[in-house]
Amino acid sequence: MKATLVATTALLGLTAVPALSQTVGISIPAATHGWAGALNFHAERTVARLAEANPDMEFVLTTTSDPGQQVSDLEDMVATRGIDALVVLPFESEPLTGPIARIADSGVWVTVVDRGLAQEGIEDLYVAGDNDSFGRTAGQYFAETLDEGAQVVVMRGIASTVDNERVAGFEAALEGSGVEVAAMDHGNWNRDTAFNLMQDWLSRFPEIDAVWAADDDMAVGALAAIDQAGRTGEMFVVGGAGMKEMVDRIRNSDPIVPVNVTYPPSMISTAIEMTVLGLTAGAPMSGDFIIASELITPENAENFYFEDSPY
Amino acid sequence: MKATLVATTALLGLTAVPALSQTVGISIPAATHGWAGALNFHAERTVARLAEANPDMEFVLTTTSDPGQQVSDLEDMVATRGIDALVVLPFESEPLTGPIARIADSGVWVTVVDRGLAQEGIEDLYVAGDNDSFGRTAGQYFAETLDEGAQVVVMRGIASTVDNERVAGFEAALEGSGVEVAAMDHGNWNRDTAFNLMQDWLSRFPEIDAVWAADDDMAVGALAAIDQAGRTGEMFVVGGAGMKEMVDRIRNSDPIVPVNVTYPPSMISTAIEMTVLGLTAGAPMSGDFIIASELITPENAENFYFEDSPY
Repeated sequence: MKATLVATTALLGLTAVPALSQTVGISIPAATHGWAGALNFHAERTVARLAEANPDMEFVLTTTSDPGQQVSDLEDMVATRGIDALVVLPFESEPLTGPIARIADSGVWVTVVDRGLAQEGIEDLYVAGDNDSFGRTAGQYFAETLDEGAQVVVMRGIASTVDNERVAGFEAALEGSGVEVAAMDHGNWNRDTAFNLMQDWLSRFPEIDAVWAADDDMAVGALAAIDQAGRTGEMFVVGGAGMKEMVDRIRNSDPIVPVNVTYPPSMISTAIEMTVLGLTAGAPMSGDFIIASELITPENAENFYFEDSPY
Repeated sequence: MKATLVATTALLGLTAVPALSQTVGISIPAATHGWAGALNFHAERTVARLAEANPDMEFVLTTTSDPGQQVSDLEDMVATRGIDALVVLPFESEPLTGPIARIADSGVWVTVVDRGLAQEGIEDLYVAGDNDSFGRTAGQYFAETLDEGAQVVVMRGIASTVDNERVAGFEAALEGSGVEVAAMDHGNWNRDTAFNLMQDWLSRFPEIDAVWAADDDMAVGALAAIDQAGRTGEMFVVGGAGMKEMVDRIRNSDPIVPVNVTYPPSMISTAIEMTVLGLTAGAPMSGDFIIASELITPENAENFYFEDSPY
């Protein structure tokens, strides 16, 4: 299943010079919501950078809004563009597994980003975020910042392994800190659900010292409910994923949004860069790269703020 | 503990221009044995490549033959060269942990290669081989190639977590194949110990169909014993780590050395390239990159053969 990154040469007729150029295909979900929008922004930025740095290399970037279209995009890249390497963030795992396995079998280097396939060992390189680290990094901030006995409420995402890993990391970091989780419920990564959940908690708990929302969309909903209840001065809210608005509040030292935790959409840049490096540098690039979450603070927020990004 | 890769600018006096060049320090064990020799070869090759590609960047490469010297090398890199990033393969984990933690705390990006530190969370990037995959890749070849009831002997390394992980991967891959492990013992990653062990097994077992030596040095010892016993035609030997002599035999389709499994010393190139990419490309490079072992076959052996490498 493993392809080795080697320049493919195609003799174009008897007297033609071997074509040394290599083509990298990139297939990602369309910008239907915030994180995917930023994914598109970073993919385009990186392709522009690499195309300039590698004039001999060609890039094909496609976006898709359903799994069926992604399958035909991929087949098209192989059939008409003869790609040497593919960087793909699968729209869904199940329907993409077979088609991507066939592409890998044909000798094309395959890099899978973030959303794993339904079967192990197909891709050459896997680049993904670290959900345990995402929760743990937030939890460590709570444990270090809050006093013993402090009251915290937790908004989980949609029930899933991603959500379980994030919450397990958060809880592990709180252990022994004396910080108390007063309530925990699913906000389903949804702004409106989070707003309603926070309203309920605000009416039930006279003391809330901090909110952990395991995604920035939920943090936006929680912040709106807190603002409406006039309790902004009482607590802080930590979301996650590095939404532009949150990073902007952090760099302006807004006390209710003191920090954030990355789950960077720019991981698509990492995946494209590593794939191209494998094609050009001859260093081993096959394996699993799990990108750690970083704490965004007022000190480093500038490095995480992308003026032109939609997210 | 996490540093963010950003160009550091130092104003050299009131009217001086900010110094935009960045310095990367690399500290690795001296070439005292085969694998470390190849490590040095690949580190030098990559530094030469990157120095040419990044004229503004400086590289300091030091080699060391004891932990104390490595500590002073690192302190020197920080004090006199003002490194922005460090790529280090620790000679030993314990004595290097404190000094590397202090360097990371001072804001220098730290990439640790292969040998982990004694404490988690110090380095920004960890690049290492995959011992489970190393054993599993060999085991899969045995399971696919040998018939049910085939007799296999296994040479383990020095008792350690590395050895346990390799053997567990090998055994997991054999499960259900009907291939039988007739004997398993520690050859301690040593050529002479492996020679004696193989001699003993050859005298005890009339049928041996294949040998798995969990390192190429042991495979060399096993091959010598098999040759001396005149039983070369009866079995094949699979070692691991991609020693030059083994890769040469594979590309020449020697039936007793049909394949090999990588644990690439060129991972130092991966680590240096990713560190420099973090400095230059602005893509997230913080996390754990575990490099998969690959199966070296007659078809792809050329890609793993480095004429000028000592190993």
